[in-house]
Amino acid sequence: MPIRLGPNQYGKAESRVVRIYRDTPRHRIRDLNVSSALRGRFEDAHVSGDQRDVLPTDTQKNTAFAFAKDKGVTSIEEFALTLGDHFIAAAPAAEGARVAVQEYPWERIEVDGAGHDHSFVRSGAGVRTTVVNIDGSGPDRTAHVVSGIEDLTVLKSTGSEFHGFLKDEYTTLQETTDRILATSLVVRWRYAHTDVAWDKSYDAIKALLLRRFAEIHSYALQQTLYGMGESVLEQHPEVAEIKFSAPNKHHFLVDLSPFGVDNPGEVFHAADRPYGLIELTVQRDDAPDPGNAWHGVPGFC
Amino acid sequence: MPIRLGPNQYGKAESRVVRIYRDTPRHRIRDLNVSSALRGRFEDAHVSGDQRDVLPTDTQKNTAFAFAKDKGVTSIEEFALTLGDHFIAAAPAAEGARVAVQEYPWERIEVDGAGHDHSFVRSGAGVRTTVVNIDGSGPDRTAHVVSGIEDLTVLKSTGSEFHGFLKDEYTTLQETTDRILATSLVVRWRYAHTDVAWDKSYDAIKALLLRRFAEIHSYALQQTLYGMGESVLEQHPEVAEIKFSAPNKHHFLVDLSPFGVDNPGEVFHAADRPYGLIELTVQRDDAPDPGNAWHGVPGFC
Amino acid sequence: MPIRLGPNQYGKAESRVVRIYRDTPRHRIRDLNVSSALRGRFEDAHVSGDQRDVLPTDTQKNTAFAFAKDKGVTSIEEFALTLGDHFIAAAPAAEGARVAVQEYPWERIEVDGAGHDHSFVRSGAGVRTTVVNIDGSGPDRTAHVVSGIEDLTVLKSTGSEFHGFLKDEYTTLQETTDRILATSLVVRWRYAHTDVAWDKSYDAIKALLLRRFAEIHSYALQQTLYGMGESVLEQHPEVAEIKFSAPNKHHFLVDLSPFGVDNPGEVFHAADRPYGLIELTVQRDDAPDPGNAWHGVPGFC
Amino acid sequence: MPIRLGPNQYGKAESRVVRIYRDTPRHRIRDLNVSSALRGRFEDAHVSGDQRDVLPTDTQKNTAFAFAKDKGVTSIEEFALTLGDHFIAAAPAAEGARVAVQEYPWERIEVDGAGHDHSFVRSGAGVRTTVVNIDGSGPDRTAHVVSGIEDLTVLKSTGSEFHGFLKDEYTTLQETTDRILATSLVVRWRYAHTDVAWDKSYDAIKALLLRRFAEIHSYALQQTLYGMGESVLEQHPEVAEIKFSAPNKHHFLVDLSPFGVDNPGEVFHAADRPYGLIELTVQRDDAPDPGNAWHGVPGFC
Repeated sequence: MPIRLGPNQYGKAESRVVRIYRDTPRHRIRDLNVSSALRGRFEDAHVSGDQRDVLPTDTQKNTAFAFAKDKGVTSIEEFALTLGDHFIAAAPAAEGARVAVQEYPWERIEVDGAGHDHSFVRSGAGVRTTVVNIDGSGPDRTAHVVSGIEDLTVLKSTGSEFHGFLKDEYTTLQETTDRILATSLVVRWRYAHTDVAWDKSYDAIKALLLRRFAEIHSYALQQTLYGMGESVLEQHPEVAEIKFSAPNKHHFLVDLSPFGVDNPGEVFHAADRPYGLIELTVQRDDAPDPGNAWHGVPGFC
Repeated sequence: MPIRLGPNQYGKAESRVVRIYRDTPRHRIRDLNVSSALRGRFEDAHVSGDQRDVLPTDTQKNTAFAFAKDKGVTSIEEFALTLGDHFIAAAPAAEGARVAVQEYPWERIEVDGAGHDHSFVRSGAGVRTTVVNIDGSGPDRTAHVVSGIEDLTVLKSTGSEFHGFLKDEYTTLQETTDRILATSLVVRWRYAHTDVAWDKSYDAIKALLLRRFAEIHSYALQQTLYGMGESVLEQHPEVAEIKFSAPNKHHFLVDLSPFGVDNPGEVFHAADRPYGLIELTVQRDDAPDPGNAWHGVPGFC
Repeated sequence: MPIRLGPNQYGKAESRVVRIYRDTPRHRIRDLNVSSALRGRFEDAHVSGDQRDVLPTDTQKNTAFAFAKDKGVTSIEEFALTLGDHFIAAAPAAEGARVAVQEYPWERIEVDGAGHDHSFVRSGAGVRTTVVNIDGSGPDRTAHVVSGIEDLTVLKSTGSEFHGFLKDEYTTLQETTDRILATSLVVRWRYAHTDVAWDKSYDAIKALLLRRFAEIHSYALQQTLYGMGESVLEQHPEVAEIKFSAPNKHHFLVDLSPFGVDNPGEVFHAADRPYGLIELTVQRDDAPDPGNAWHGVPGFC
Repeated sequence: MPIRLGPNQYGKAESRVVRIYRDTPRHRIRDLNVSSALRGRFEDAHVSGDQRDVLPTDTQKNTAFAFAKDKGVTSIEEFALTLGDHFIAAAPAAEGARVAVQEYPWERIEVDGAGHDHSFVRSGAGVRTTVVNIDGSGPDRTAHVVSGIEDLTVLKSTGSEFHGFLKDEYTTLQETTDRILATSLVVRWRYAHTDVAWDKSYDAIKALLLRRFAEIHSYALQQTLYGMGESVLEQHPEVAEIKFSAPNKHHFLVDLSPFGVDNPGEVFHAADRPYGLIELTVQRDDAPDPGNAWHGVPGFC
């Protein structure tokens, strides 16, 4: 028959797993959103409806909750790797597994100058992410980890120019040597291997991205992001490549001249849509092959 | 005619006004979402379509942007009061004005241990709000300010019980002496007058709400919120009453016994819907009359 | 003590109750989002944390699901009334109950020119709503029903003018005799009593609102909405008053003159924010007293 | 230097272009959300900040609006192809262009049994989409069109089974021969060429997908979707392959036995998260090479 099943995967998306560590009165919390998907030899499930090879998505969900207790959550990367390997072992037809985890940040509530033992407030600066792709098991196993940060909104109120661009008959944009630059970052970096101190690496890369956004004098969002990525690669040998997807959240200087009011870069209209969208990769020349590392990673060129 | 126009208001909603203070190299930012509405003698506009009394919503928007430059944004309450009085003066048919402002919080990006001069990151812990209602002008003018905080998500991993409740034939909920308590707070407090150090009052109330959430041993979300409100009234004479609207964000303990795994308060499923919804007011016996203070304040009993 | 509990209510919000009628092979579906709240003498629950008067929100949820089977869903109004009366009986401290229901519309999938027996597709034109408020029971019982429609997006590509409005120093808007008029309607009407053929009344009012939006030559969104409301009151004696909350979804004519292109009302930019927001009531002179009818109805003046 | 720019693209996302055809009193509307992106030799813009090769995203937006008037919108596919070719010509450094368009459906409002000339209501059943990728120009030009439908929510109240699946130690799911099957479809199909009657092809494929969903007795969502895709390929030689991304919107039968109530498939709880997520491709053996067809198409395996 000339019609066939092509690439496919299935799984349980967005299990909201909250793990409390309460071995001491000073609790710790890891607040996760877990999605898993299996790929492999699942023709029967699709073509004839025979489900004998299908580990139900409900079982995948159960496993995520059980592992949060049994194996714990030392980092989202470790958790995802453990879960992925388990699914490949549990479902013989699975040739690969993709486990994606988001982690929401919490801070301790401050009481009398100290963080409270078991009361927390959600902090807003970014959601930590990882997407793990594993192929095979045993000696042929390969595992890729792409971690990142989402929803990290940053703004520079000066130190940003945009001029010297290509013009054609449809160009009306004015050149400027001083504008607001703002974006809501989605960043994802591929680790070169899995021998990484995950939490420490994440914290350092996040701080570095913020610092470089602040420091770089911007001639375009592209150049700012490239510089941020370059610094990450320079300082983090464990990172093979880094990708950015960043809306240019336009802040338009409001023309107050009809009201006899001058506006030298002080009042702006923050627009919703349309927005510029900048996507780019910074990579090492000698980075190891990505293989399936970017499989199922949403929203990247 | 037995059919007539009843209560009405019109205005421009959600103008995204961003004000940068750049008088020194150390910029400051106030990032606002401004909504205004006028009410009064607007029968003609509705019944015959004659717009002569209508100050267009587009003009209201222009004014918000112009005032952000001309009058500045010393606080969202001051900004809203100024704007409201202006609209009542500008539109003779307007008997009252409602100006609502949300303010998004930004923090300076840390570079070498210090906050950067002009680079900022959105912080997540809550959106500051105010709703100002003004009636009339001159000697008969009354002005009410209801300020608050939205989207402040908090969680206690212990110190929360729920038992002793009413049971009927449809009750299946188990009693518990240890559960997770989590909510995303919407709080609004009515000021008794307008002679307030707005920014200072807001900061203190926000810190107090968080601290009390942490400190109070909870027997129900109602009792926790009541205690938080009581503390605000006790310590803030400028506040006449305070209202809470708080979803009980259920965290269900996952039953891992089918897998032979014990789960003593460590792994939870964070559910989306349905959710408990708790709404309540804490008020002073001698609070001044609210008048129109709560006019157009969304989502409160 | 000078601090006390003020108005309050609590309940379970957004239980997603789906009822399938399958007594014949031609199934019917009613797809609901149910929220209930009780108000009354709940001081103990708030002040001392004693829950003996509190019928848990979990029980309220259970009851909604059980009643969907036992009592059925002949209409969302009937369902809400039945549930509200039950809760007041079940919780002796409850003096009043509010039950709000949204209903999502489904159409049968067309197969060979006929609607399928048990396969449906969500249709988009509006979500049906009701908010029922009941106070007391027995001879003193009062019940109010406010039904409506949400998320009904309509647009006129001509037949809409806006001019003759009030101008001040901040006015830059041009007058126009031909513009796009678009809005996403939220409409709620209060029934004068509860002896109503609910489904039939809803269908007729929805059709009438759409027809009048199409027919009325618009001089402002206010005047269009007033005319729509007036028609509903004229033709539906069961309706005491009707309220509209309608964003003016601006469609700005794009200036193509920089590119040498004329644009006589053909290409528009549909803007997100800010938007005009028009809220108004049309009512009968002799409408019965609203009592608590509008209690907890979101977003209305 | 061992660090370099990798894959990248930039453009303007989500320009809300509304085109009214008013050459006769019976207006027509095409309501679009247009996103464009260019890829190619843009190293300078990223590495040194030199923008001389960059056609600003603002210009891309202007062009989309101007073309909506000048070239018109005969179909979203034609519109996207025209825009993409123009951008490659306008920006010499661009080697490829991606233009994505969503189209929102409107129906005429019914007045006296006939559709009104210029008044419309948004209908809900699905958003039409296309993603066009063009590489190069002149004789080497290649163009790929991937069209589809999003947000098409469907439900079967019976005719759906799920059993015979793989079980392991974490499996608790019960087998069933009668359940609700519901999903919110995202479907995208790649056209084998660009000589297509676009609107006609879309309408026929949408109707066929709905009909097949209704007709197929389901043993799993995978098998239902495969059958739907197979039918599209059988009846539409212009389609080379088709991909589905479909959340399994779980409707859980509610256990009413604690209340002494039987529930034979009548009352369900519609859950939000987690959800199953099924992604699959159905393709022809002899389909032409996809090349860049799926570049930048979100959310597909």
